[in-house]
Amino acid sequence: MTPQFYSKRNLQFLLNEVFNTESLNKYAYFKDHDNETFAMVLASAHQIADKMLRPLLTVMDRQEPQLVDGQIRIHEGMRDVLKKFGDDGWINAGFNFEEGGQQIPATVLSAAAFIFQSANYSASVFPFLSSGAANLIRSFGSESLKNIFLQNIYGGAWQGTMALTEPDAGSSLTDITTSASPTENEGVFMISGQKIYISAGDHDMCENIVHLMLTKIKGGPAGAKGISLFVVPKHRFEKGVTGKLIANDVATAGIYHKMGYKGAPIAHLIMGANNDCEGYLVGEPHQGLKYMFQMMNEARLGVGLNGVAIASAAYYASLAYAQERPQGRLISDKDVSKPQVQIIKHADVKRMLLFQKAIVEGSLSLVLQCNMYVDLAKVTIGEEQKKYEMLLDLLTPVAKSYPSEMACHSTSNAVQILGGAGYTTDFPVEQYYREARINPIHEGTTGIHGITMLGRNVMQHNGKSLALLSEEMVTTIRIASKYDKLKPFGVQLSKMLNKVGATTQSLFTINGANPESLLADATLYLEMFGILSIGWQWLLQANFAQIELEKNPEDSFYLGKIQTMKYFFEYELIKINYLSERLLSENKVTIDMKEDWF
Amino acid sequence: MTPQFYSKRNLQFLLNEVFNTESLNKYAYFKDHDNETFAMVLASAHQIADKMLRPLLTVMDRQEPQLVDGQIRIHEGMRDVLKKFGDDGWINAGFNFEEGGQQIPATVLSAAAFIFQSANYSASVFPFLSSGAANLIRSFGSESLKNIFLQNIYGGAWQGTMALTEPDAGSSLTDITTSASPTENEGVFMISGQKIYISAGDHDMCENIVHLMLTKIKGGPAGAKGISLFVVPKHRFEKGVTGKLIANDVATAGIYHKMGYKGAPIAHLIMGANNDCEGYLVGEPHQGLKYMFQMMNEARLGVGLNGVAIASAAYYASLAYAQERPQGRLISDKDVSKPQVQIIKHADVKRMLLFQKAIVEGSLSLVLQCNMYVDLAKVTIGEEQKKYEMLLDLLTPVAKSYPSEMACHSTSNAVQILGGAGYTTDFPVEQYYREARINPIHEGTTGIHGITMLGRNVMQHNGKSLALLSEEMVTTIRIASKYDKLKPFGVQLSKMLNKVGATTQSLFTINGANPESLLADATLYLEMFGILSIGWQWLLQANFAQIELEKNPEDSFYLGKIQTMKYFFEYELIKINYLSERLLSENKVTIDMKEDWF
Repeated sequence: MTPQFYSKRNLQFLLNEVFNTESLNKYAYFKDHDNETFAMVLASAHQIADKMLRPLLTVMDRQEPQLVDGQIRIHEGMRDVLKKFGDDGWINAGFNFEEGGQQIPATVLSAAAFIFQSANYSASVFPFLSSGAANLIRSFGSESLKNIFLQNIYGGAWQGTMALTEPDAGSSLTDITTSASPTENEGVFMISGQKIYISAGDHDMCENIVHLMLTKIKGGPAGAKGISLFVVPKHRFEKGVTGKLIANDVATAGIYHKMGYKGAPIAHLIMGANNDCEGYLVGEPHQGLKYMFQMMNEARLGVGLNGVAIASAAYYASLAYAQERPQGRLISDKDVSKPQVQIIKHADVKRMLLFQKAIVEGSLSLVLQCNMYVDLAKVTIGEEQKKYEMLLDLLTPVAKSYPSEMACHSTSNAVQILGGAGYTTDFPVEQYYREARINPIHEGTTGIHGITMLGRNVMQHNGKSLALLSEEMVTTIRIASKYDKLKPFGVQLSKMLNKVGATTQSLFTINGANPESLLADATLYLEMFGILSIGWQWLLQANFAQIELEKNPEDSFYLGKIQTMKYFFEYELIKINYLSERLLSENKVTIDMKEDWF
Repeated sequence: MTPQFYSKRNLQFLLNEVFNTESLNKYAYFKDHDNETFAMVLASAHQIADKMLRPLLTVMDRQEPQLVDGQIRIHEGMRDVLKKFGDDGWINAGFNFEEGGQQIPATVLSAAAFIFQSANYSASVFPFLSSGAANLIRSFGSESLKNIFLQNIYGGAWQGTMALTEPDAGSSLTDITTSASPTENEGVFMISGQKIYISAGDHDMCENIVHLMLTKIKGGPAGAKGISLFVVPKHRFEKGVTGKLIANDVATAGIYHKMGYKGAPIAHLIMGANNDCEGYLVGEPHQGLKYMFQMMNEARLGVGLNGVAIASAAYYASLAYAQERPQGRLISDKDVSKPQVQIIKHADVKRMLLFQKAIVEGSLSLVLQCNMYVDLAKVTIGEEQKKYEMLLDLLTPVAKSYPSEMACHSTSNAVQILGGAGYTTDFPVEQYYREARINPIHEGTTGIHGITMLGRNVMQHNGKSLALLSEEMVTTIRIASKYDKLKPFGVQLSKMLNKVGATTQSLFTINGANPESLLADATLYLEMFGILSIGWQWLLQANFAQIELEKNPEDSFYLGKIQTMKYFFEYELIKINYLSERLLSENKVTIDMKEDWF
């Protein structure tokens, strides 16, 4: 039997009870869907995850992709997986019916992605990247580009990628140097340059690789304003839009071997070494970064979800071990003539399990919350739509970074529960620990998101985004105040909300004129905001759990929810105090540190 | 050129200025040593580390030990390394002159071990284990055992190990089942059982493996009181004490593949499958755990040091990268027409470097402080000796666990500074991240040490150990109060010392009658105690730095010391507040959590 890697029950709770995803069908776009169709989507996802992805988890880690004669070879098992994703319509499942899509809400598709990711993170990124690439083409590309590329990507025959990073431009995309020179054919440019760290940037389990690539059109404006988006395929049609496929002068110059997430190949690409690399402009010139960022926000929620998913798999692996492994005795009964007890009975092991449960279920809730905002922003109009967009925009760095960072700690707790066994390759937790470490890095490092959060988001729209989020939290607190058992936690969250608000205001008052000082501890600010947001999601979940407990006070699932909320409040939420203390300190330790003092 | 993996300057500062190791030579045992001989020891260690160990770091990770036909094969490069350690007298360097040792203080040998460990952790454990095994034999073994085993281990021809863990007994050594049956030869027993996770438990770069093994003599008392210590070699002499070497029925049944620390083989051993495994009793029957724990405390300081050492190597790798890598621009000057700046100029990168520097140099200081207590306890008598023993005993779980835990975070910061590059195998930081993760597990998990700390150490001798440590800290605070620049930090440390004291008292007042409640958050208590202890060590270092700054106010090294002390106080020491808050909460979240609520 495949080991458990996520909780169906918890997903149902979040989708059906907490977020009431079915309520989306009151909007025309989602009217054909209800809990039944959603359940079918998740059941299909579970089948693929359980039968195809999870069985490949270990072997894809041990048999890494290799670059052989200029071609990256990945695990053979991915052939069936990619075909399945294409055949079953996963890549365009969220797109319109007219495009062959199924108009499934982002919230539900995220839940499905979570299932794939928790089964096998590496395998899950291939369709995810194709979907993102296709979305850029369908949103901003010409009819001709759509005709050439979309069906092939949707079907899984062609792999999509996002090609941004270059040797000298990672966090600073402004500095990319890959160039595009116009040709006599409109929209067709000759591309020249290098890209590195391109996920699924080359592999042998598909017919073609389609890069959505940021480049600078020669003679365009300097910096970010001169960045354009191109489709740059590995193979192009001989006659432009038809004919046989011929090589497009995109060479795979290298493959990166990594600490984890090994099943997904990461390529170093060189375009135009033979001056024969065609690229096709997507949308308007110089709008590339704007286009890409619309998709990046989606990708960022996906990365946050990755963090949660890997932490979920590690949590269930360590929970199963803790339930089975006898070791030691209770502090209150050390009689050595009695058998050893299962380690789940030790308070410290329960603490490590509760930490994981709090991180996994709290973070999953936040990411789904953001996806609800995605769905609602799609189907509402006017002020309401603006509200959801603002909430989504505000929370995206949080939903990307908090789960990514905390998944490293969460998987570390899983390793610790297994002890020596957890450090060996006999159990999957060490792999989860290695895999989780990528998420604070890709799609913008935590440091970059901290700067976005404090330097842009919190004060955007004259602070209206922040006010809207406060309102959402206050609503949750108000509901909690109706239940005696939850009221104290509502009071506590309210205090922390005020503290974060006051800290934010003070930061701008003190440092308003000095952005360097303001942003020096932006990473800590983001952490504080993350803790507050997860506290909110836990109280939200507790509210819904309490509804059921009023009817059935002994239900283990809901009692577990309340207890984990308590854990989060008692052990994590209080960290806001010291973070705020540090943020408001006048001692600018990092800024004052001189380079030659290290 | 070999990349930098530690700071000679910092080691000199700690040994010569902070701890004034040379002052030990006023005691007869150390009278032949001074700073000159210590410098020679460290220079020799540097040569070996730089020329032999560091060059093997990557290759030993990539070419893991393998079990072939019942024999573990390790990297061929270890042959010269082990010979060098033996030839140059490293294994018995701390032992008496009469035994061929050099009576070098533990403080200085630890500094040397730190150099080895930071160059190549896997390679460093071989002599470390041999030294520990030999120390058990020389301390508690018969003359006959000493004659047979010691010279061969000292010379590096025979590998020593510590064989404790069994499939059903890891943290709970009480439950070991490996048995020893007496034979007609006094002191000779037949051994039967299994041991797992035995570091250097088998390899092909030496002539024999000598296990210092815990077993239970048949018919002895149940539990820990029935544990005895045996020497169980892989090969024994045909005629007992002479003759050729013959197999001793210790079979290598398996090898564990691990996340990191791969160069050191970890074996699964089966003793007595053919009823022909001889073991030789060390000391008295049923005293095995007592003997082993005397050595374990030494090993625990060694594990803490490991954590520091790996974090040191990662720190210097990320510092070098940050000094060289251009990316992005200052927040105060984003002009894209100017070149990108080195990332060390970004406040967030400086924060991640300061964190690492604070952890590495603060933890190293604490481990060396403990080793000074080892040395002083060895050469003093009466009350003074007792004082050093109590301080050492109290601080050992802290010096083992804090560096181990924090090295995981510290190496994670190193990975983050390198970004995508840090996640690839092109740079060593991902290896350091993997390697560091073992330390919170082996030689007692952090959870076990937490229980030792709060359940035993802090209240030992009617609280006298704790009072002694407070006195040490108060002395440091008093000295700091003489300098205007340090005084506020002395005040802050004093507050935190009082807070930890008050928290400790309250914990016992509230939970005195209920050890299960008292110890539920023992891990957090240990963390709090660790932060306090490192804060103390940083103020201690700042005191010595200030002496030099009074003479030369522009000295970068000492300015860096003061600034890193500030970092620790501003970002880390304040965590004591929330830890204390949690520890004193009446909400026993983990104890109340039911197993079926997960």
